[in-house]
Amino acid sequence: METGGSAPPAGAIFRREVRIEWGNCDPAGIVFYPRYLELFDANTAYLFESVGLPKPTLVKSYDIVGMPIVDVQAKFFMPSTFGDRITVESRIGEWRRSGLRVDHRLLKEGKVAVEGYESRVWAGKDPEKPGGIKTKPVPQEVIDRFSAAH
Amino acid sequence: METGGSAPPAGAIFRREVRIEWGNCDPAGIVFYPRYLELFDANTAYLFESVGLPKPTLVKSYDIVGMPIVDVQAKFFMPSTFGDRITVESRIGEWRRSGLRVDHRLLKEGKVAVEGYESRVWAGKDPEKPGGIKTKPVPQEVIDRFSAAH
Amino acid sequence: METGGSAPPAGAIFRREVRIEWGNCDPAGIVFYPRYLELFDANTAYLFESVGLPKPTLVKSYDIVGMPIVDVQAKFFMPSTFGDRITVESRIGEWRRSGLRVDHRLLKEGKVAVEGYESRVWAGKDPEKPGGIKTKPVPQEVIDRFSAAH
Amino acid sequence: METGGSAPPAGAIFRREVRIEWGNCDPAGIVFYPRYLELFDANTAYLFESVGLPKPTLVKSYDIVGMPIVDVQAKFFMPSTFGDRITVESRIGEWRRSGLRVDHRLLKEGKVAVEGYESRVWAGKDPEKPGGIKTKPVPQEVIDRFSAAH
Repeated sequence: METGGSAPPAGAIFRREVRIEWGNCDPAGIVFYPRYLELFDANTAYLFESVGLPKPTLVKSYDIVGMPIVDVQAKFFMPSTFGDRITVESRIGEWRRSGLRVDHRLLKEGKVAVEGYESRVWAGKDPEKPGGIKTKPVPQEVIDRFSAAH
Repeated sequence: METGGSAPPAGAIFRREVRIEWGNCDPAGIVFYPRYLELFDANTAYLFESVGLPKPTLVKSYDIVGMPIVDVQAKFFMPSTFGDRITVESRIGEWRRSGLRVDHRLLKEGKVAVEGYESRVWAGKDPEKPGGIKTKPVPQEVIDRFSAAH
Repeated sequence: METGGSAPPAGAIFRREVRIEWGNCDPAGIVFYPRYLELFDANTAYLFESVGLPKPTLVKSYDIVGMPIVDVQAKFFMPSTFGDRITVESRIGEWRRSGLRVDHRLLKEGKVAVEGYESRVWAGKDPEKPGGIKTKPVPQEVIDRFSAAH
Repeated sequence: METGGSAPPAGAIFRREVRIEWGNCDPAGIVFYPRYLELFDANTAYLFESVGLPKPTLVKSYDIVGMPIVDVQAKFFMPSTFGDRITVESRIGEWRRSGLRVDHRLLKEGKVAVEGYESRVWAGKDPEKPGGIKTKPVPQEVIDRFSAAH
Protein backbone atom coordinates (compact mmCIF):
# COMPACT_ATOMS: atom_id res chain seq x y z
CA MET A 1 0.00 0.00 0.00
CA GLU A 2 1.32 3.35 -0.97
CA THR A 3 -0.44 5.33 1.68
CA GLY A 4 1.30 7.11 4.47
CA GLY A 5 4.60 7.54 2.64
CA SER A 6 7.02 10.07 4.00
CA ALA A 7 6.05 12.68 1.41
CA PRO A 8 2.27 12.86 1.40
CA PRO A 9 0.82 14.09 -1.89
CA ALA A 10 0.00 17.74 -2.02
CA GLY A 11 -3.59 18.73 -1.45
CA ALA A 12 -6.37 18.95 1.06
CA ILE A 13 -6.26 16.83 4.17
CA PHE A 14 -9.33 16.28 6.28
CA ARG A 15 -8.95 15.42 9.94
CA ARG A 16 -11.55 14.78 12.60
CA GLU A 17 -11.48 13.36 16.06
CA VAL A 18 -13.75 10.47 16.94
CA ARG A 19 -14.39 8.76 20.24
CA ILE A 20 -14.47 4.98 20.31
CA GLU A 21 -17.87 4.01 21.62
CA TRP A 22 -18.97 0.91 23.54
CA GLY A 23 -20.97 -0.36 20.57
CA ASN A 24 -17.90 -0.14 18.29
CA CYS A 25 -16.08 -2.73 20.38
CA ASP A 26 -16.21 -6.50 20.50
CA PRO A 27 -15.94 -9.03 23.34
CA ALA A 28 -12.15 -8.65 23.25
CA GLY A 29 -12.77 -5.04 24.25
CA ILE A 30 -11.30 -3.65 21.04
CA VAL A 31 -12.84 -2.05 17.97
CA PHE A 32 -14.56 -4.60 15.72
CA TYR A 33 -12.60 -4.04 12.52
CA PRO A 34 -15.46 -3.36 10.05
CA ARG A 35 -16.23 -0.27 12.17
CA TYR A 36 -12.94 1.22 10.99
CA LEU A 37 -14.13 0.90 7.41
CA GLU A 38 -17.26 2.83 8.37
CA LEU A 39 -14.92 5.61 9.49
CA PHE A 40 -13.09 5.45 6.15
CA ASP A 41 -16.33 5.78 4.21
CA ALA A 42 -17.61 8.68 6.30
CA ASN A 43 -14.29 10.50 6.13
CA THR A 44 -14.26 10.35 2.33
CA ALA A 45 -17.57 12.21 2.35
CA TYR A 46 -16.25 14.75 4.85
CA LEU A 47 -13.07 15.23 2.78
CA PHE A 48 -15.09 16.16 -0.30
CA GLU A 49 -17.36 18.35 1.78
CA SER A 50 -14.30 20.13 3.20
CA VAL A 51 -13.37 21.41 -0.28
CA GLY A 52 -16.90 22.56 -1.00
CA LEU A 53 -18.13 19.38 -2.67
CA PRO A 54 -20.69 17.69 -0.43
CA LYS A 55 -22.24 14.65 -2.07
CA PRO A 56 -25.53 16.34 -3.11
CA THR A 57 -23.49 19.00 -4.93
CA LEU A 58 -21.34 16.35 -6.60
CA VAL A 59 -24.35 14.44 -7.84
CA LYS A 60 -26.12 17.54 -9.14
CA SER A 61 -23.17 19.45 -10.61
CA TYR A 62 -21.39 16.57 -12.31
CA ASP A 63 -24.27 14.26 -13.22
CA ILE A 64 -22.81 11.30 -11.37
CA VAL A 65 -24.51 8.67 -9.27
CA GLY A 66 -21.66 8.64 -6.80
CA MET A 67 -18.20 7.18 -6.33
CA PRO A 68 -18.74 3.44 -5.91
CA ILE A 69 -15.96 1.59 -4.14
CA VAL A 70 -14.01 -1.01 -6.10
CA ASP A 71 -11.22 -1.90 -3.70
CA VAL A 72 -10.44 -1.33 -0.04
CA GLN A 73 -7.47 -2.25 2.11
CA ALA A 74 -6.70 -1.65 5.75
CA LYS A 75 -3.75 -2.56 7.97
CA PHE A 76 -4.12 -2.68 11.71
CA PHE A 77 -1.15 -1.77 13.87
CA MET A 78 -2.67 -1.08 17.26
CA PRO A 79 -6.05 -1.89 18.77
CA SER A 80 -8.28 0.84 20.11
CA THR A 81 -10.64 0.53 23.03
CA PHE A 82 -13.77 2.12 24.45
CA GLY A 83 -13.28 5.81 25.17
CA ASP A 84 -10.17 6.29 23.03
CA ARG A 85 -9.82 9.53 21.08
CA ILE A 86 -8.76 8.79 17.53
CA THR A 87 -7.84 11.17 14.73
CA VAL A 88 -9.10 10.06 11.34
CA GLU A 89 -7.04 11.70 8.63
CA SER A 90 -7.89 11.44 4.93
CA ARG A 91 -6.57 12.77 1.66
CA ILE A 92 -6.68 11.98 -2.03
CA GLY A 93 -3.84 9.52 -2.60
CA GLU A 94 -4.08 9.49 -6.36
CA TRP A 95 -6.29 10.78 -9.15
CA ARG A 96 -6.90 8.19 -11.82
CA ARG A 97 -8.41 8.51 -15.28
CA SER A 98 -11.93 7.81 -14.06
CA GLY A 99 -11.51 7.36 -10.38
CA LEU A 100 -9.41 8.05 -7.35
CA ARG A 101 -7.72 6.55 -4.35
CA VAL A 102 -8.50 7.97 -0.92
CA ASP A 103 -5.86 7.34 1.74
CA HIS A 104 -6.87 7.08 5.37
CA ARG A 105 -4.92 6.97 8.61
CA LEU A 106 -6.17 6.61 12.15
CA LEU A 107 -3.88 8.09 14.74
CA LYS A 108 -3.91 7.37 18.44
CA GLU A 109 -1.75 9.60 20.57
CA GLY A 110 0.19 10.52 17.47
CA LYS A 111 0.89 6.95 16.38
CA VAL A 112 -0.62 5.23 13.36
CA ALA A 113 -3.16 2.69 14.58
CA VAL A 114 -4.83 1.88 11.25
CA GLU A 115 -3.83 2.73 7.71
CA GLY A 116 -5.70 2.02 4.52
CA TYR A 117 -7.15 3.21 1.27
CA GLU A 118 -10.30 3.08 -0.78
CA SER A 119 -10.27 2.94 -4.58
CA ARG A 120 -13.39 4.50 -6.02
CA VAL A 121 -14.70 5.18 -9.50
CA TRP A 122 -16.38 8.32 -10.78
CA ALA A 123 -19.63 6.94 -12.10
CA GLY A 124 -22.59 8.28 -14.04
CA LYS A 125 -25.66 6.55 -15.36
CA ASP A 126 -25.07 4.31 -18.35
CA PRO A 127 -27.21 5.83 -21.14
CA GLU A 128 -27.34 2.46 -22.88
CA LYS A 129 -28.19 0.25 -19.91
CA PRO A 130 -31.15 1.21 -17.68
CA GLY A 131 -30.08 0.97 -14.06
CA GLY A 132 -26.45 0.52 -15.07
CA ILE A 133 -23.53 2.80 -14.33
CA LYS A 134 -20.58 3.90 -16.42
CA THR A 135 -17.29 5.36 -15.25
CA LYS A 136 -16.39 8.86 -16.45
CA PRO A 137 -13.24 10.98 -16.25
CA VAL A 138 -12.98 12.99 -13.05
CA PRO A 139 -13.56 16.66 -14.04
CA GLN A 140 -10.45 18.81 -13.80
CA GLU A 141 -12.26 21.37 -11.67
CA VAL A 142 -12.92 18.72 -9.04
CA ILE A 143 -9.22 17.89 -8.94
CA ASP A 144 -8.38 21.59 -8.78
CA ARG A 145 -10.54 22.04 -5.70
CA PHE A 146 -8.24 19.75 -3.75
CA SER A 147 -5.06 21.47 -4.93
CA ALA A 148 -6.50 24.89 -4.18
CA ALA A 149 -7.24 23.72 -0.65
CA HIS A 150 -3.57 22.88 -0.20
CA MET B 1 -46.55 -3.86 26.14
CA GLU B 2 -49.25 -6.06 24.76
CA THR B 3 -46.99 -8.47 22.94
CA GLY B 4 -46.52 -12.05 23.88
CA GLY B 5 -49.82 -12.36 25.72
CA SER B 6 -51.08 -15.79 26.56
CA ALA B 7 -53.42 -15.89 23.58
CA PRO B 8 -51.43 -14.78 20.57
CA PRO B 9 -53.58 -13.34 17.77
CA ALA B 10 -54.43 -15.73 14.99
CA GLY B 11 -52.39 -15.51 11.84
CA ALA B 12 -49.06 -16.13 10.28
CA ILE B 13 -46.01 -16.47 12.46
CA PHE B 14 -42.54 -16.26 11.01
CA ARG B 15 -39.66 -17.92 12.80
CA ARG B 16 -36.01 -18.11 11.92
CA GLU B 17 -32.91 -19.16 13.75
CA VAL B 18 -29.97 -16.78 13.97
CA ARG B 19 -26.49 -17.28 15.39
CA ILE B 20 -25.08 -14.55 17.58
CA GLU B 21 -21.87 -13.41 15.93
CA TRP B 22 -18.73 -11.91 17.44
CA GLY B 23 -19.45 -8.53 15.87
CA ASN B 24 -22.93 -8.41 17.43
CA CYS B 25 -21.42 -8.42 20.93
CA ASP B 26 -19.94 -5.71 23.09
CA PRO B 27 -17.02 -5.63 25.57
CA ALA B 28 -19.29 -7.20 28.20
CA GLY B 29 -19.47 -10.19 25.87
CA ILE B 30 -23.20 -9.82 25.29
CA VAL B 31 -25.27 -8.63 22.34
CA PHE B 32 -25.14 -4.83 21.93
CA TYR B 33 -28.85 -4.04 22.21
CA PRO B 34 -29.38 -2.06 18.97
CA ARG B 35 -28.43 -5.29 17.15
CA TYR B 36 -31.67 -6.82 18.44
CA LEU B 37 -33.63 -4.06 16.74
CA GLU B 38 -31.85 -4.92 13.49
CA LEU B 39 -33.27 -8.43 13.94
CA PHE B 40 -36.75 -6.98 14.51
CA ASP B 41 -36.59 -4.94 11.33
CA ALA B 42 -35.31 -7.82 9.22
CA ASN B 43 -37.90 -10.21 10.62
CA THR B 44 -40.75 -7.86 9.70
CA ALA B 45 -39.58 -8.06 6.09
CA TYR B 46 -39.30 -11.85 6.28
CA LEU B 47 -42.77 -12.09 7.85
CA PHE B 48 -44.35 -10.24 4.92
CA GLU B 49 -42.30 -12.26 2.46
CA SER B 50 -43.52 -15.47 4.12
CA VAL B 51 -47.12 -14.65 3.13
CA GLY B 52 -46.13 -13.84 -0.44
CA LEU B 53 -45.61 -10.12 0.05
CA PRO B 54 -41.93 -9.31 -0.28
CA LYS B 55 -41.26 -5.59 -0.11
CA PRO B 56 -40.83 -5.03 -3.86
CA THR B 57 -44.27 -6.60 -4.39
CA LEU B 58 -45.78 -4.45 -1.65
CA VAL B 59 -44.40 -1.29 -3.14
CA LYS B 60 -45.50 -2.12 -6.67
CA SER B 61 -48.91 -3.68 -5.95
CA TYR B 62 -50.15 -1.23 -3.38
CA ASP B 63 -48.47 1.98 -4.43
CA ILE B 64 -46.81 2.54 -1.06
CA VAL B 65 -43.35 3.80 -0.24
CA GLY B 66 -43.03 1.34 2.62
CA MET B 67 -44.05 0.92 6.22
CA PRO B 68 -42.12 3.58 8.15
CA ILE B 69 -41.65 2.89 11.82
CA VAL B 70 -43.27 5.24 14.30
CA ASP B 71 -42.65 3.51 17.61
CA VAL B 72 -40.51 0.64 18.85
CA GLN B 73 -40.16 -0.99 22.24
CA ALA B 74 -38.04 -3.86 23.46
CA LYS B 75 -37.63 -5.54 26.83
CA PHE B 76 -34.55 -7.53 27.63
CA PHE B 77 -34.86 -10.51 29.95
CA MET B 78 -31.68 -12.50 29.30
CA PRO B 79 -28.40 -11.61 27.63
CA SER B 80 -27.15 -13.60 24.66
CA THR B 81 -23.53 -14.27 23.85
CA PHE B 82 -21.30 -15.16 20.93
CA GLY B 83 -22.31 -18.44 19.33
CA ASP B 84 -25.82 -18.61 20.83
CA ARG B 85 -28.62 -19.94 18.65
CA ILE B 86 -31.65 -17.68 18.93
CA THR B 87 -35.12 -18.06 17.46
CA VAL B 88 -36.61 -14.81 16.23
CA GLU B 89 -40.37 -15.11 16.09
CA SER B 90 -42.63 -12.44 14.61
CA ARG B 91 -46.31 -11.94 13.94
CA ILE B 92 -48.77 -9.15 13.31
CA GLY B 93 -49.86 -8.03 16.76
CA GLU B 94 -52.60 -5.71 15.57
CA TRP B 95 -53.97 -4.21 12.39
CA ARG B 96 -54.77 -0.53 12.71
CA ARG B 97 -56.65 1.80 10.41
CA SER B 98 -53.55 2.84 8.49
CA GLY B 99 -50.83 0.83 10.08
CA LEU B 100 -49.94 -2.20 12.10
CA ARG B 101 -48.04 -3.48 15.09
CA VAL B 102 -45.52 -6.27 14.59
CA ASP B 103 -44.70 -8.30 17.69
CA HIS B 104 -41.30 -9.91 18.06
CA ARG B 105 -39.88 -12.43 20.50
CA LEU B 106 -36.39 -13.82 20.72
CA LEU B 107 -36.19 -17.24 22.28
CA LYS B 108 -33.09 -18.88 23.68
CA GLU B 109 -33.43 -22.52 24.59
CA GLY B 110 -37.18 -22.06 24.68
CA LYS B 111 -37.13 -19.06 27.02
CA VAL B 112 -37.99 -15.48 26.08
CA ALA B 113 -34.78 -13.46 25.97
CA VAL B 114 -36.11 -10.32 24.29
CA GLU B 115 -39.66 -9.19 23.57
CA GLY B 116 -40.83 -6.14 21.72
CA TYR B 117 -42.91 -4.57 19.02
CA GLU B 118 -42.69 -2.15 16.15
CA SER B 119 -45.56 0.18 15.23
CA ARG B 120 -45.51 1.00 11.54
CA VAL B 121 -47.66 3.02 9.20
CA TRP B 122 -48.83 2.09 5.73
CA ALA B 123 -47.55 5.01 3.71
CA GLY B 124 -47.88 6.22 0.16
CA LYS B 125 -46.58 9.34 -1.52
CA ASP B 126 -48.38 12.51 -0.56
CA PRO B 127 -49.85 13.81 -3.86
CA GLU B 128 -49.90 17.34 -2.43
CA LYS B 129 -46.40 17.48 -0.99
CA PRO B 130 -43.44 16.52 -3.18
CA GLY B 131 -41.20 14.15 -1.24
CA GLY B 132 -43.79 13.83 1.52
CA ILE B 133 -45.63 10.71 2.59
CA LYS B 134 -49.22 10.10 3.60
CA THR B 135 -50.66 7.20 5.55
CA LYS B 136 -53.30 5.07 3.84
CA PRO B 137 -55.62 2.30 5.04
CA VAL B 138 -54.06 -1.15 4.92
CA PRO B 139 -55.79 -3.02 2.06
CA GLN B 140 -58.08 -5.83 3.22
CA GLU B 141 -56.36 -8.29 0.90
CA VAL B 142 -53.07 -7.70 2.69
CA ILE B 143 -54.72 -8.46 6.01
CA ASP B 144 -56.35 -11.54 4.51
CA ARG B 145 -53.00 -12.92 3.46
CA PHE B 146 -51.96 -13.22 7.06
CA SER B 147 -55.20 -14.88 8.16
CA ALA B 148 -55.05 -17.31 5.26
CA ALA B 149 -51.56 -18.29 6.33
CA HIS B 150 -52.92 -19.26 9.73
CA MET C 1 -43.72 7.43 27.56
CA GLU C 2 -42.93 9.96 30.21
CA THR C 3 -39.95 11.51 28.49
CA GLY C 4 -39.86 15.01 27.20
CA GLY C 5 -42.60 16.32 29.47
CA SER C 6 -42.99 20.04 29.77
CA ALA C 7 -41.12 20.20 33.07
CA PRO C 8 -37.91 18.27 32.59
CA PRO C 9 -36.43 16.93 35.81
CA ALA C 10 -33.68 18.98 37.31
CA GLY C 11 -30.15 17.86 36.70
CA ALA C 12 -27.42 17.48 34.16
CA ILE C 13 -28.27 17.45 30.48
CA PHE C 14 -25.79 16.24 27.93
CA ARG C 15 -26.04 17.48 24.35
CA ARG C 16 -23.92 16.70 21.35
CA GLU C 17 -24.29 17.29 17.66
CA VAL C 18 -23.97 14.38 15.26
CA ARG C 19 -23.94 14.31 11.48
CA ILE C 20 -26.03 11.70 9.75
CA GLU C 21 -23.67 9.64 7.64
CA TRP C 22 -24.28 7.71 4.41
CA GLY C 23 -23.85 4.39 6.18
CA ASN C 24 -26.51 5.29 8.77
CA CYS C 25 -29.17 5.48 6.05
CA ASP C 26 -31.22 2.85 4.26
CA PRO C 27 -32.46 2.52 0.67
CA ALA C 28 -35.32 4.93 1.46
CA GLY C 29 -32.58 7.49 2.10
CA ILE C 30 -33.44 7.88 5.78
CA VAL C 31 -31.74 6.74 8.97
CA PHE C 32 -32.18 3.00 9.57
CA TYR C 33 -33.90 3.10 12.95
CA PRO C 34 -31.58 0.83 15.00
CA ARG C 35 -28.89 3.45 14.37
CA TYR C 36 -30.85 5.85 16.59
CA LEU C 37 -30.61 3.37 19.43
CA GLU C 38 -26.84 3.32 18.96
CA LEU C 39 -26.96 7.07 19.55
CA PHE C 40 -29.02 6.55 22.71
CA ASP C 41 -26.52 4.06 24.09
CA ALA C 42 -23.52 6.24 23.32
CA ASN C 43 -25.15 9.33 24.76
CA THR C 44 -25.84 7.57 28.06
CA ALA C 45 -22.10 6.96 28.36
CA TYR C 46 -21.33 10.57 27.47
CA LEU C 47 -23.91 11.82 29.98
CA PHE C 48 -22.21 9.94 32.83
CA GLU C 49 -18.81 11.07 31.61
CA SER C 50 -20.05 14.67 31.60
CA VAL C 51 -20.58 14.56 35.38
CA GLY C 52 -17.17 13.00 35.97
CA LEU C 53 -18.26 9.37 35.88
CA PRO C 54 -16.85 7.73 32.78
CA LYS C 55 -17.59 4.02 32.65
CA PRO C 56 -14.14 2.82 33.81
CA THR C 57 -14.52 5.02 36.90
CA LEU C 58 -18.02 3.71 37.55
CA VAL C 59 -16.89 0.11 37.34
CA LYS C 60 -13.87 0.66 39.57
CA SER C 61 -15.35 3.02 42.16
CA TYR C 62 -18.69 1.31 42.67
CA ASP C 63 -17.84 -2.32 42.04
CA ILE C 64 -20.46 -2.73 39.32
CA VAL C 65 -20.27 -4.59 36.04
CA GLY C 66 -22.22 -1.87 34.27
CA MET C 67 -25.76 -0.69 33.73
CA PRO C 68 -27.43 -3.39 31.64
CA ILE C 69 -30.47 -2.29 29.68
CA VAL C 70 -33.80 -3.82 30.56
CA ASP C 71 -36.22 -1.79 28.45
CA VAL C 72 -35.97 0.67 25.58
CA GLN C 73 -38.56 2.68 23.71
CA ALA C 74 -38.30 5.16 20.88
CA LYS C 75 -40.85 7.19 18.95
CA PHE C 76 -40.05 8.54 15.54
CA PHE C 77 -41.62 11.83 14.48
CA MET C 78 -39.48 12.93 11.54
CA PRO C 79 -37.01 11.11 9.33
CA SER C 80 -33.43 12.29 9.04
CA THR C 81 -31.28 12.00 5.97
CA PHE C 82 -27.63 11.94 4.93
CA GLY C 83 -25.81 15.09 6.00
CA ASP C 84 -28.36 16.25 8.57
CA ARG C 85 -27.06 17.82 11.76
CA ILE C 86 -28.86 16.36 14.75
CA THR C 87 -28.66 17.29 18.40
CA VAL C 88 -28.79 14.31 20.73
CA GLU C 89 -29.92 15.43 24.16
CA SER C 90 -29.95 13.13 27.18
CA ARG C 91 -30.73 13.37 30.87
CA ILE C 92 -31.64 11.14 33.78
CA GLY C 93 -35.43 10.83 33.62
CA GLU C 94 -35.82 9.01 36.90
CA TRP C 95 -33.73 7.40 39.62
CA ARG C 96 -35.11 4.08 40.76
CA ARG C 97 -34.20 1.90 43.70
CA SER C 98 -31.59 -0.07 41.80
CA GLY C 99 -31.65 1.50 38.40
CA LEU C 100 -32.50 4.53 36.35
CA ARG C 101 -34.28 5.78 33.28
CA VAL C 102 -32.31 7.82 30.77
CA ASP C 103 -34.40 10.06 28.50
CA HIS C 104 -33.19 10.91 25.03
CA ARG C 105 -34.35 13.38 22.40
CA LEU C 106 -33.01 13.97 18.93
CA LEU C 107 -33.62 17.45 17.64
CA LYS C 108 -33.44 18.55 14.03
CA GLU C 109 -33.58 22.26 13.45
CA GLY C 110 -35.06 22.67 16.89
CA LYS C 111 -37.85 20.12 16.39
CA VAL C 112 -38.08 16.74 18.09
CA ALA C 113 -37.32 14.06 15.49
CA VAL C 114 -36.95 11.09 17.84
CA GLU C 115 -37.77 10.69 21.51
CA GLY C 116 -37.18 7.71 23.75
CA TYR C 117 -35.81 6.26 26.91
CA GLU C 118 -33.66 3.45 28.20
CA SER C 119 -34.33 1.71 31.51
CA ARG C 120 -31.14 0.38 33.01
CA VAL C 121 -30.21 -1.45 36.18
CA TRP C 122 -27.26 -0.83 38.44
CA ALA C 123 -25.63 -4.21 38.50
CA GLY C 124 -22.77 -5.85 40.36
CA LYS C 125 -21.48 -9.39 40.31
CA ASP C 126 -23.68 -11.89 42.06
CA PRO C 127 -21.52 -13.30 44.88
CA GLU C 128 -23.61 -16.46 44.91
CA LYS C 129 -23.73 -17.19 41.18
CA PRO C 130 -20.46 -17.24 39.21
CA GLY C 131 -20.92 -15.19 36.06
CA GLY C 132 -24.27 -13.89 37.27
CA ILE C 133 -25.21 -10.30 38.07
CA LYS C 134 -27.25 -8.77 40.84
CA THR C 135 -28.88 -5.36 40.96
CA LYS C 136 -27.78 -2.96 43.69
CA PRO C 137 -29.05 0.40 44.94
CA VAL C 138 -27.64 3.36 43.04
CA PRO C 139 -25.22 5.13 45.42
CA GLN C 140 -26.46 8.50 46.62
CA GLU C 141 -23.20 10.15 45.60
CA VAL C 142 -23.81 9.12 42.00
CA ILE C 143 -27.24 10.71 42.11
CA ASP C 144 -25.76 13.81 43.71
CA ARG C 145 -23.30 14.24 40.87
CA PHE C 146 -26.18 14.84 38.49
CA SER C 147 -27.90 17.34 40.76
CA ALA C 148 -24.67 19.18 41.37
CA ALA C 149 -24.20 19.51 37.65
CA HIS C 150 -27.55 21.26 37.39
CA MET D 1 -4.47 -10.22 -4.09
CA GLU D 2 -3.68 -13.86 -4.26
CA THR D 3 -7.14 -15.10 -3.41
CA GLY D 4 -9.37 -16.91 -5.81
CA GLY D 5 -6.57 -18.22 -7.99
CA SER D 6 -7.36 -20.97 -10.43
CA ALA D 7 -6.04 -23.70 -8.15
CA PRO D 8 -7.50 -23.10 -4.71
CA PRO D 9 -5.42 -24.58 -1.91
CA ALA D 10 -6.54 -27.93 -0.64
CA GLY D 11 -8.57 -27.99 2.53
CA ALA D 12 -11.85 -27.19 4.11
CA ILE D 13 -14.19 -24.70 2.48
CA PHE D 14 -17.07 -23.19 4.39
CA ARG D 15 -20.07 -21.91 2.49
CA ARG D 16 -23.25 -20.32 3.74
CA GLU D 17 -26.09 -18.43 2.13
CA VAL D 18 -27.05 -15.02 3.43
CA ARG D 19 -29.92 -12.74 2.49
CA ILE D 20 -29.16 -9.09 1.97
CA GLU D 21 -31.33 -7.18 4.40
CA TRP D 22 -32.76 -3.66 4.21
CA GLY D 23 -30.47 -2.44 6.97
CA ASN D 24 -27.38 -3.67 5.12
CA CYS D 25 -28.07 -1.27 2.24
CA ASP D 26 -27.37 2.41 1.75
CA PRO D 27 -29.31 5.21 0.04
CA ALA D 28 -28.00 3.99 -3.33
CA GLY D 29 -29.92 0.79 -2.60
CA ILE D 30 -26.79 -1.35 -2.49
CA VAL D 31 -24.88 -3.01 0.34
CA PHE D 32 -22.86 -0.50 2.38
CA TYR D 33 -19.39 -1.95 1.94
CA PRO D 34 -18.30 -2.33 5.59
CA ARG D 35 -21.19 -4.81 5.92
CA TYR D 36 -19.28 -7.17 3.61
CA LEU D 37 -16.37 -7.13 6.04
CA GLU D 38 -18.78 -8.15 8.80
CA LEU D 39 -19.59 -11.18 6.65
CA PHE D 40 -15.87 -11.94 6.26
CA ASP D 41 -15.30 -11.84 10.00
CA ALA D 42 -18.31 -14.02 10.78
CA ASN D 43 -17.38 -16.54 8.10
CA THR D 44 -13.89 -16.96 9.53
CA ALA D 45 -15.49 -18.02 12.80
CA TYR D 46 -17.86 -20.39 11.01
CA LEU D 47 -14.96 -21.87 8.99
CA PHE D 48 -13.07 -22.79 12.17
CA GLU D 49 -16.24 -24.09 13.74
CA SER D 50 -16.85 -26.27 10.67
CA VAL D 51 -13.63 -28.21 11.37
CA GLY D 52 -14.49 -28.64 15.03
CA LEU D 53 -12.70 -25.58 16.33
CA PRO D 54 -15.26 -23.04 17.53
CA LYS D 55 -13.64 -20.02 19.13
CA PRO D 56 -14.22 -21.06 22.77
CA THR D 57 -12.44 -24.34 22.02
CA LEU D 58 -9.58 -22.53 20.31
CA VAL D 59 -9.09 -20.21 23.24
CA LYS D 60 -9.20 -22.98 25.81
CA SER D 61 -7.24 -25.70 24.00
CA TYR D 62 -4.45 -23.58 22.61
CA ASP D 63 -4.11 -20.85 25.21
CA ILE D 64 -4.62 -18.04 22.73
CA VAL D 65 -6.55 -14.80 23.08
CA GLY D 66 -7.82 -15.05 19.53
CA MET D 67 -6.70 -14.33 16.00
CA PRO D 68 -6.43 -10.54 15.76
CA ILE D 69 -6.66 -9.13 12.26
CA VAL D 70 -3.62 -7.34 10.86
CA ASP D 71 -4.62 -6.73 7.26
CA VAL D 72 -7.82 -6.92 5.21
CA GLN D 73 -8.53 -6.36 1.55
CA ALA D 74 -11.70 -6.57 -0.48
CA LYS D 75 -12.49 -6.02 -4.13
CA PHE D 76 -15.99 -5.26 -5.26
CA PHE D 77 -17.11 -6.48 -8.68
CA MET D 78 -20.89 -6.30 -8.50
CA PRO D 79 -23.27 -4.54 -6.14
CA SER D 80 -25.88 -6.49 -4.22
CA THR D 81 -29.29 -5.22 -3.24
CA PHE D 82 -32.03 -5.85 -0.69
CA GLY D 83 -33.34 -9.41 -0.89
CA ASP D 84 -30.40 -10.87 -2.81
CA ARG D 85 -29.23 -14.36 -1.89
CA ILE D 86 -25.45 -14.43 -1.60
CA THR D 87 -23.12 -17.33 -1.00
CA VAL D 88 -20.22 -16.49 1.30
CA GLU D 89 -17.39 -18.93 0.71
CA SER D 90 -14.27 -19.03 2.87
CA ARG D 91 -11.13 -21.10 3.14
CA ILE D 92 -7.62 -20.87 4.56
CA GLY D 93 -5.57 -19.21 1.81
CA GLU D 94 -2.22 -19.69 3.50
CA TRP D 95 -0.73 -20.85 6.77
CA ARG D 96 2.06 -18.63 7.98
CA ARG D 97 4.59 -19.11 10.74
CA SER D 98 2.42 -17.47 13.38
CA GLY D 99 -0.70 -16.59 11.50
CA LEU D 100 -2.88 -17.29 8.51
CA ARG D 101 -4.69 -15.76 5.58
CA VAL D 102 -8.39 -16.45 5.18
CA ASP D 103 -9.75 -16.01 1.66
CA HIS D 104 -13.36 -15.00 1.14
CA ARG D 105 -15.59 -14.85 -1.92
CA LEU D 106 -19.17 -13.68 -2.20
CA LEU D 107 -21.04 -15.24 -5.07
CA LYS D 108 -24.28 -13.97 -6.56
CA GLU D 109 -25.95 -16.28 -9.03
CA GLY D 110 -22.65 -18.07 -9.46
CA LYS D 111 -20.63 -14.94 -10.21
CA VAL D 112 -18.02 -13.41 -7.92
CA ALA D 113 -19.47 -10.20 -6.45
CA VAL D 114 -16.84 -9.56 -3.78
CA GLU D 115 -13.45 -11.13 -3.18
CA GLY D 116 -11.03 -10.51 -0.36
CA TYR D 117 -8.86 -11.82 2.39
CA GLU D 118 -8.06 -11.30 6.04
CA SER D 119 -4.57 -11.75 7.47
CA ARG D 120 -4.70 -12.78 11.08
CA VAL D 121 -2.15 -13.66 13.72
CA TRP D 122 -2.25 -16.51 16.20
CA ALA D 123 -1.90 -14.65 19.47
CA GLY D 124 -1.46 -15.57 23.09
CA LYS D 125 -0.94 -13.43 26.15
CA ASP D 126 2.47 -11.86 26.44
CA PRO D 127 3.92 -13.26 29.70
CA GLU D 128 6.18 -10.24 29.99
CA LYS D 129 3.66 -7.47 29.29
CA PRO D 130 0.41 -7.41 31.27
CA GLY D 131 -2.46 -6.89 28.85
CA GLY D 132 -0.16 -7.38 25.87
CA ILE D 133 -0.31 -10.10 23.26
CA LYS D 134 2.38 -12.14 21.55
CA THR D 135 2.15 -14.13 18.33
CA LYS D 136 2.80 -17.85 18.49
CA PRO D 137 3.25 -20.57 15.87
CA VAL D 138 -0.02 -22.10 14.69
CA PRO D 139 -0.12 -25.66 16.14
CA GLN D 140 0.27 -28.37 13.52
CA GLU D 141 -2.86 -30.12 14.75
CA VAL D 142 -4.92 -27.04 13.93
CA ILE D 143 -3.53 -27.04 10.41
CA ASP D 144 -4.20 -30.77 10.13
CA ARG D 145 -7.85 -30.26 10.96
CA PHE D 146 -8.32 -28.29 7.79
CA SER D 147 -6.49 -30.81 5.60
CA ALA D 148 -8.43 -33.68 7.14
CA ALA D 149 -11.63 -31.86 6.28
CA HIS D 150 -10.58 -31.82 2.63
